[in-house]
Amino acid sequence: MSQSNVLFATNRNTSREALFARAEEISADLSRRAAELDRDGQPPLAEIVKLKSAGLLNALHAPEIGGGGLDWVDGLKLVRILARGESSIAQLLGYHFVNSQFIYWALDEVRARVLGSETVAKNLYWGAAVNPRDPGLVLTRRGSGYVLNGRKSFSTAAHVSDYINANANLDGKIVGFAVPTSRPGYTANDDWDNFGQRLSDSGSVEFHDFPVYEEDFVGAPDAPPPVLATFNTPLIQLVFVNFYLGTAEGALQEALNYVRTTTRPWVTSGVERAADDPYILERIGEFTAALKASAALADSAAAAVQASLARGQHVTARERGEAAAEAYAAKVNATHVSLDITSRVFELTGARSTAERYRFDRYWRNVRTHTLHDPVFYKAKEVGEFVLNDKVPEVSLYS
Amino acid sequence: MSQSNVLFATNRNTSREALFARAEEISADLSRRAAELDRDGQPPLAEIVKLKSAGLLNALHAPEIGGGGLDWVDGLKLVRILARGESSIAQLLGYHFVNSQFIYWALDEVRARVLGSETVAKNLYWGAAVNPRDPGLVLTRRGSGYVLNGRKSFSTAAHVSDYINANANLDGKIVGFAVPTSRPGYTANDDWDNFGQRLSDSGSVEFHDFPVYEEDFVGAPDAPPPVLATFNTPLIQLVFVNFYLGTAEGALQEALNYVRTTTRPWVTSGVERAADDPYILERIGEFTAALKASAALADSAAAAVQASLARGQHVTARERGEAAAEAYAAKVNATHVSLDITSRVFELTGARSTAERYRFDRYWRNVRTHTLHDPVFYKAKEVGEFVLNDKVPEVSLYS
Amino acid sequence: MSQSNVLFATNRNTSREALFARAEEISADLSRRAAELDRDGQPPLAEIVKLKSAGLLNALHAPEIGGGGLDWVDGLKLVRILARGESSIAQLLGYHFVNSQFIYWALDEVRARVLGSETVAKNLYWGAAVNPRDPGLVLTRRGSGYVLNGRKSFSTAAHVSDYINANANLDGKIVGFAVPTSRPGYTANDDWDNFGQRLSDSGSVEFHDFPVYEEDFVGAPDAPPPVLATFNTPLIQLVFVNFYLGTAEGALQEALNYVRTTTRPWVTSGVERAADDPYILERIGEFTAALKASAALADSAAAAVQASLARGQHVTARERGEAAAEAYAAKVNATHVSLDITSRVFELTGARSTAERYRFDRYWRNVRTHTLHDPVFYKAKEVGEFVLNDKVPEVSLYS
Amino acid sequence: MSQSNVLFATNRNTSREALFARAEEISADLSRRAAELDRDGQPPLAEIVKLKSAGLLNALHAPEIGGGGLDWVDGLKLVRILARGESSIAQLLGYHFVNSQFIYWALDEVRARVLGSETVAKNLYWGAAVNPRDPGLVLTRRGSGYVLNGRKSFSTAAHVSDYINANANLDGKIVGFAVPTSRPGYTANDDWDNFGQRLSDSGSVEFHDFPVYEEDFVGAPDAPPPVLATFNTPLIQLVFVNFYLGTAEGALQEALNYVRTTTRPWVTSGVERAADDPYILERIGEFTAALKASAALADSAAAAVQASLARGQHVTARERGEAAAEAYAAKVNATHVSLDITSRVFELTGARSTAERYRFDRYWRNVRTHTLHDPVFYKAKEVGEFVLNDKVPEVSLYS
Repeated sequence: MSQSNVLFATNRNTSREALFARAEEISADLSRRAAELDRDGQPPLAEIVKLKSAGLLNALHAPEIGGGGLDWVDGLKLVRILARGESSIAQLLGYHFVNSQFIYWALDEVRARVLGSETVAKNLYWGAAVNPRDPGLVLTRRGSGYVLNGRKSFSTAAHVSDYINANANLDGKIVGFAVPTSRPGYTANDDWDNFGQRLSDSGSVEFHDFPVYEEDFVGAPDAPPPVLATFNTPLIQLVFVNFYLGTAEGALQEALNYVRTTTRPWVTSGVERAADDPYILERIGEFTAALKASAALADSAAAAVQASLARGQHVTARERGEAAAEAYAAKVNATHVSLDITSRVFELTGARSTAERYRFDRYWRNVRTHTLHDPVFYKAKEVGEFVLNDKVPEVSLYS
Repeated sequence: MSQSNVLFATNRNTSREALFARAEEISADLSRRAAELDRDGQPPLAEIVKLKSAGLLNALHAPEIGGGGLDWVDGLKLVRILARGESSIAQLLGYHFVNSQFIYWALDEVRARVLGSETVAKNLYWGAAVNPRDPGLVLTRRGSGYVLNGRKSFSTAAHVSDYINANANLDGKIVGFAVPTSRPGYTANDDWDNFGQRLSDSGSVEFHDFPVYEEDFVGAPDAPPPVLATFNTPLIQLVFVNFYLGTAEGALQEALNYVRTTTRPWVTSGVERAADDPYILERIGEFTAALKASAALADSAAAAVQASLARGQHVTARERGEAAAEAYAAKVNATHVSLDITSRVFELTGARSTAERYRFDRYWRNVRTHTLHDPVFYKAKEVGEFVLNDKVPEVSLYS
Repeated sequence: MSQSNVLFATNRNTSREALFARAEEISADLSRRAAELDRDGQPPLAEIVKLKSAGLLNALHAPEIGGGGLDWVDGLKLVRILARGESSIAQLLGYHFVNSQFIYWALDEVRARVLGSETVAKNLYWGAAVNPRDPGLVLTRRGSGYVLNGRKSFSTAAHVSDYINANANLDGKIVGFAVPTSRPGYTANDDWDNFGQRLSDSGSVEFHDFPVYEEDFVGAPDAPPPVLATFNTPLIQLVFVNFYLGTAEGALQEALNYVRTTTRPWVTSGVERAADDPYILERIGEFTAALKASAALADSAAAAVQASLARGQHVTARERGEAAAEAYAAKVNATHVSLDITSRVFELTGARSTAERYRFDRYWRNVRTHTLHDPVFYKAKEVGEFVLNDKVPEVSLYS
Repeated sequence: MSQSNVLFATNRNTSREALFARAEEISADLSRRAAELDRDGQPPLAEIVKLKSAGLLNALHAPEIGGGGLDWVDGLKLVRILARGESSIAQLLGYHFVNSQFIYWALDEVRARVLGSETVAKNLYWGAAVNPRDPGLVLTRRGSGYVLNGRKSFSTAAHVSDYINANANLDGKIVGFAVPTSRPGYTANDDWDNFGQRLSDSGSVEFHDFPVYEEDFVGAPDAPPPVLATFNTPLIQLVFVNFYLGTAEGALQEALNYVRTTTRPWVTSGVERAADDPYILERIGEFTAALKASAALADSAAAAVQASLARGQHVTARERGEAAAEAYAAKVNATHVSLDITSRVFELTGARSTAERYRFDRYWRNVRTHTLHDPVFYKAKEVGEFVLNDKVPEVSLYS
């Protein structure tokens, strides 16, 4: 299950340029194999190894401990680049970014640095088992520690996680903790079978007398988290935004290639190449404009959240809320744009492009599946509440 | 290949009520099995047998020869009803309607009646091999007759057709003919594998020294067909319209069932049932309104084409063109509405409804695949040419 | 104020054909003068006289008393025809239809016939003062009768009404009555000044000791009306639908004329006439398709309401509700379609068509203004409640 | 006609902060008077004086000659800010920016500096008479110079221009020149009367023996301009983008104020304030998201064009084309977003907000009018040509 015992020839050049170049390479490679990977729909163990080897998992950690030192604006761009090649792998990178950075926001500085250093040194993948719509884990005292029992229905990266953030019920209160999955009693089931994000390894996990210790705890039980420890939500939402848009960008890119090489001009079009068809050209212009606008907002929202986050423990709930509202506006827009384009690129490519060997429908399937994570109308409502009534989004794992 | 040697306990009640009731039953049954059928994606031999047994294949033939005597307004409604259950089967019924009625428009009365009577008596399924974008069949003289050789890449109902209308090149001219597939030299390949309309049996067919006789010919070589013999295009387009809309109606119906029984209310919705969520209710209202409008136009366009067709050999090119423009307006609208709704019903049902066992994505996949038959922008342009410049659509197998 | 003392040379041919022909004539005439009428924005006294002369006000009354005997399907088509020429006049005809037919639904047969006969004989225009969002009329006993006092902010047809249906508060209960505006104490103010439906004469009215008698009452105070007496709402909503669609049809027709005669081809279009521009043609096709679909639903909803209404006192609340849901679906669709088209026809006509002398913006202004009568999202919600939860719309003056 | 002889108490603080603060002040003031200004529709002489006094006309000129030294990213933001208050005034500022900066791109350095210094010192407003769709000016030799004769149908800022860039036919070739309007023979007519951008002073101008001298010429006759001298087109298009978006932002802001203070909750909404209505909140969220995305693209496109422009005479046609494609993508997106929002804000504000005294329709009228400057479908096509076929937009006054 865990990948931490694999020997990595991790690339030691962690410069921004090197990380982006490797992300582009991996994305291009994924793009070539994405139809096949989508068909198989297996936990992408080998792909995560490549992300590790490329140093991408550590891109956001501090240079002092061997990380790439990138900020979130860059980290989210890496997610978008990967999504052009394959959407689930991008999701997994983004989830890891949030889950592994969470330790810096929620733990005291010493412990965060110890755990961060171990994470970078061992190239650990961080997942989570925290979905609030699916309560199911119970912590009970045993000896000097605790044991965890129960089941989470959907746990992205179930097989590939080396470490996870988790929540459980302890004496009627919710307590959070961070634990390695290598402890006995962790089982990732092979039951993720949805029509999209098929490589996201989002099946159920079970815990059977899984040991948890006092020192694993994150925050006090049921205590409201400090503001800084609530940035996981706007950031995970920006991860969504970026892999939605990257997926749509990938769909458009693939459609352009297909139009250039394969689509036949329509019989009444009067043109000799489909690439000269006025309607195809106009639609490409429209899709491009919509994608560029949504991506520009994604970037500016990332900058807003990054600026707020950079205030560290001084950041206020109001500042977090303002930045979150930017992120949620980006989420609303990216949802519409990515669904529209992944469905409509077929207007460019034409009837034969629906052949199963291309699996071009995967772009829409991927975006359609994950954009249901939380309803877009309630995200829009939150943005409206902020703009009209000056209410910042209520903090939760969805907002 | 051919089903004509199967013994049928064909239902003898061919009243309108009985035919509609049986269509509803078959649709409901298909709905229950559609996910599985879609997964398998096999030529639907057994389903066509059911249509035959139900008397549906003969619904449009004259009562005098044992048919149901329905007009096209009703025939197209039957297609829509079936599509609510399963989209490919509806397509196959509709294609058969057009292909088997074509004999009444293109052949002399005596021969049409003979062939029609045989069709009803033997409950024959009629397909076609006429795609003008895919020329490939050659007829050559041999003895007193001809032999047909070549390949058509996409031939809907390839395995289930008992009879087909076909086109081929003979001495540099295009000649049409109607032949049974039971003659030697007809091969339907198992190469239909697209992401939608997976049961439509639209793979390639090959002809190897397939015998054709003078008496099989329909019309003179390269002669412009009489106006009546050009109604196959507006009618096949109305078949499309009706199975697109039926598919979207099926998607909405399935989504309503799911919302009533399975969708959980959103955490911040303040309602106890998803079925009381204001946004879900509004969207259902919007989808319903759009579907009803498009279906109302489908029905009125069917009535227009039927009225024009009923003028028989007296119908003029202008009248055909006016009716066709109605049909193509319906096509444009149905394309947008069915794509939008089959993609957006997931806003109602939520994240868990993307589980592969439901295969709810099939509605979008089906509509997305077939709406590419001919580009929607050129259909819209044809409607515009008629409305603005008073030009009726130029007759072709696409218009 | 009242027009009933004007001498009419009312056309005596009240056949369906004659009425439709006259509606077309009046519509064409209005179309030529609509820009000017819109600029002036005065109560259209002269236009109502023309409707009277043409026999259009009496189109729905029974032939036995001199009416045209048309049903609502036809009546609503007359509204649509007029709206192609001028939107407010169409609104006024439709409002009159509902207000004057109301007597047959709400009064006992004898009194209805007396009032109906007087209406036809004197060619009376019927208005109303019943807006439930604007309570303001009080009825108090005086002598053997009552006096009415108060103000209604918006009373469509304020200056042109000969008779009105009104509501007022009497001893804490709401009581309805039908009265002629010629009694002393009725004042229509000149304060309608909105950017759309500028001829609809929808300013405020005031009542100063306006006499009301027991025999004017319609129904018992605060008693729930019989089902039949609640058809005014689905029918007034269908009036809206038809004048929205007629307005959009008028906008498109005007744009087509302009494109044919005036729009210049774009510099990079490669065509010599704007009428051959591929994008203009496609958009015309799209607008046509959307309009035809919405109009087809308008017609089928009208047929549904008419069928339900035809059941007379036997009609059930459920039947009324089902028919109303059809009407409200049509309302939702017509709202979107008419707004979209009246705004987008300018893509066809181009920059110079914004010259004030054309006042082509009036189409959008008219539709934009009246589609706010009640929020489209709540109409959609009502349709959703019916479709999903089997709840018929709750009876009110909005539903 | 010319304003240059007015004495200005021009504000001497030309810092970025001061210029932005003054733009916000002027915008807020315009917002309060915009309904009235729109009603009157006069050339905004007094408003231009305020822009001059505020130092805004000189915002982009070099600090060395007394300008604000802002780059185009900032300059375009000033246009957007003004448009929130009043759309035409924003258009006029933006046009002036392009017309007055053009001298630095098209003239030799010495002459540009002289003319620039005069412009700043005298606070000159720069217009243009160059519309290529409307050829009409002829230059003929007279004595040692030339005289200009003819008419331009639409010349934005006709009355307020102190200096103009113009084109005319000289011996069959097109020649450009820059001249003060104070010379004899310049007439701005009072014939601008369109339904939107009513203050933009875009009526016709006439030249009667208007003297032009050799030294007024810009470039050689019919010579292809240097790349740098073609940046007026992407920049004027970005001016459009920014005043469209600013107008939509102004419409939304005004609607929010109205909802907070005036809109009544709907009768079946179950809320006590319209500001708590779920549908209103959701739409505000949607509009906000769309506007933010479009504005983010506008800003990033401005940065791209600015970066390209900053390469001065070294900039290549390819670089100009790439930057222009960004600008045109922004144009396409801003067109759709601004039209949609200015039409749909009424869903928030409700029926009474259509009262003529608010003139809230002006937002849509303004955007609707100017977005027809050049067809959005051809702009989309140009973007498509670049993305699909790697063709940069062909240089013209529209691209």
